[in-house]
Amino acid sequence: MIHLTCVSCSRTYKKEKNRYFCDNCGSIFGTLVVKYDYDKIRPMLASFSKTAPMYQFEMLLPVKNYSSVADAVGGTPLLEFDNLLGMDKLYVKNDGMNLSASLKDRASLIAVNLAVEEGYETIFCASTGNAASSLALISASSPLKTVIFVPEKMPAGKLAQLKVAGVKINRISGTYDDAFDQSMTLGFSKHWYCRNSAVNPYLLEGKKTAAYEILVQLDYQVPDYVLVSVGDGTVISAIIKGFEEFKILGLVDKVPTVIGVQAEGASTLKHVFQKGKPYTPIREVVDTIADSISVGYPRDVIKACQFLNRNGGDMISVHDEEIVEAIRDLASMTGVFAEPAGATPLAGLKNMLRSGKIKPHNKVVILVTGNGLKDISAIGG
Amino acid sequence: MIHLTCVSCSRTYKKEKNRYFCDNCGSIFGTLVVKYDYDKIRPMLASFSKTAPMYQFEMLLPVKNYSSVADAVGGTPLLEFDNLLGMDKLYVKNDGMNLSASLKDRASLIAVNLAVEEGYETIFCASTGNAASSLALISASSPLKTVIFVPEKMPAGKLAQLKVAGVKINRISGTYDDAFDQSMTLGFSKHWYCRNSAVNPYLLEGKKTAAYEILVQLDYQVPDYVLVSVGDGTVISAIIKGFEEFKILGLVDKVPTVIGVQAEGASTLKHVFQKGKPYTPIREVVDTIADSISVGYPRDVIKACQFLNRNGGDMISVHDEEIVEAIRDLASMTGVFAEPAGATPLAGLKNMLRSGKIKPHNKVVILVTGNGLKDISAIGG
Repeated sequence: MIHLTCVSCSRTYKKEKNRYFCDNCGSIFGTLVVKYDYDKIRPMLASFSKTAPMYQFEMLLPVKNYSSVADAVGGTPLLEFDNLLGMDKLYVKNDGMNLSASLKDRASLIAVNLAVEEGYETIFCASTGNAASSLALISASSPLKTVIFVPEKMPAGKLAQLKVAGVKINRISGTYDDAFDQSMTLGFSKHWYCRNSAVNPYLLEGKKTAAYEILVQLDYQVPDYVLVSVGDGTVISAIIKGFEEFKILGLVDKVPTVIGVQAEGASTLKHVFQKGKPYTPIREVVDTIADSISVGYPRDVIKACQFLNRNGGDMISVHDEEIVEAIRDLASMTGVFAEPAGATPLAGLKNMLRSGKIKPHNKVVILVTGNGLKDISAIGG
Repeated sequence: MIHLTCVSCSRTYKKEKNRYFCDNCGSIFGTLVVKYDYDKIRPMLASFSKTAPMYQFEMLLPVKNYSSVADAVGGTPLLEFDNLLGMDKLYVKNDGMNLSASLKDRASLIAVNLAVEEGYETIFCASTGNAASSLALISASSPLKTVIFVPEKMPAGKLAQLKVAGVKINRISGTYDDAFDQSMTLGFSKHWYCRNSAVNPYLLEGKKTAAYEILVQLDYQVPDYVLVSVGDGTVISAIIKGFEEFKILGLVDKVPTVIGVQAEGASTLKHVFQKGKPYTPIREVVDTIADSISVGYPRDVIKACQFLNRNGGDMISVHDEEIVEAIRDLASMTGVFAEPAGATPLAGLKNMLRSGKIKPHNKVVILVTGNGLKDISAIGG
């Protein structure tokens, strides 16, 4: 019921072990998109719950059986506030309330269960922190061995989650991009299961469920704008894919305008998107307090640009000081304590309200991808 | 539909502003228990959800209207694991997945909404940390001003949550017990709403919903044992009250055996309980890494002892080293990263399995009250 399509050459592949990207186009240009037989799925759709865990969407996911921790992934609240920032309504999707306190659990749950299904013994990933701590905790109760590659600079909370889970940690001297490259070399040579953003097409399948949940929680009333922080480009691709699929399935009649928000000091994907077609991956030196989106060589850049372009989305960036202010705004106005990358969409919203691109009566959702407890250094903790 | 009964003299009071404890018996002996007209409620009971937020139990709660953040409180997962510690099944209720990452949100939601209903402008509490950070984030979107009294020693994560929410923080030189005493003096003189454990009888009403959820999530199959960490005695009282109420309402036919687990260095409530009737509050000097249960003068001691005694429960204690080991065991076996007090019940379970008091075939639930990200010092973070 599933096949994979190359994001650049549209060649299709079947679901099979060790199939991560297109043989023709390689790991950056040839990332794959998972496609389902939507006509077969349409009659299977039942009434979705506003609070159930992510695996309620199993007919739209590539995994057959879920482990015990699945009950702790997804079903995060969409909080609704009146009269914040002069807006009629503001919705906050709080994905810092997953098991490991980030949205990445949605991807890790898919990766761990697929790796078990396909008979792997070891799973690995490179991560700025959240994917690592998520994989460590989600795989803890599985039979898999777990190997994590992380850059030297990693917030204390995320490192603590790794350490306590008892996984093998490879701290790489260098950036996230360096850790990524090293993990690919070692991981593939050892034939370990790869839970790396962008490279593994199934990670989107987990992350897209945040978009499904937003629509279910809004009673299928499509918001005008959804703001999402962007690093590698996988989360925003996944969110747009989720919205598109609910449209394909006839559950909604349009896709909201999705705005990607980057830190000014790490806005590589924005640069590629704004330069326009043909989208060409670049590698930049980056620096931001928002470690989760501190990515200089985004791996899902083609997919993100394509998804954004065909749905009228856009990319913007905000300064680190605006991110810190947004952390405080968000916590003191809504009670949601976000890590820097999690508050970045609020900083973007404030910019767009000031410039008039978003109006106070627009229906806006900001997606908070991680809990502030993971990195308290940004607020002087 | 609600009245209040003194835990010592059984005198009853009606629900009214500023009614916190029994006039005859004072704030320690005269804590109040909230009673409902259960005959009227029984026909109102609908089918409860395993994932819905806490306010699904509104007919058994003292609040009429809930604020926006209510969707982020309760409905935490009960995770089920096979073959851990040689047990057939082990259930982990993960209340570290609330908005502020602790069970205390259940109490703060009640307190904030009652304070608004009753027309207060300011709310206060003294706390070892979790109640403080919970109150700060739950009240952030309310019209209330918030004043928090905390002891000097407070884990970084909990302090960060307070700071970012923008509340007034009074750091008291001394222990939790000192902070508690000072908060009572100032708070009552200013006529602020009191969200202090034990003193405010409605806090139990929030916390008891964790017990309701355990029963709903187990399809009303009553577990043999539920293990809970104990400081002031309010959480364990609330949990037992929740089980008792579902029995009164005919939803289950018995109350599980509840075991309170304290840190060896802060086991005051255990000492009072084991000395037996008449239960006499005492004040001890305490020291443990588990800050949430580092309480030398427990304020809900009478209630906890009475509830435990009439249901066949017991109190045990574990060493700090066992707590640290339990944090690692829990994370590496289940993926649940708990703060020290949150892992304390697992340390207690290991003791009781060793001594044979709990058997591998027993159906056991451990209640994890807070997320490990709040205090990473215990594991060397």
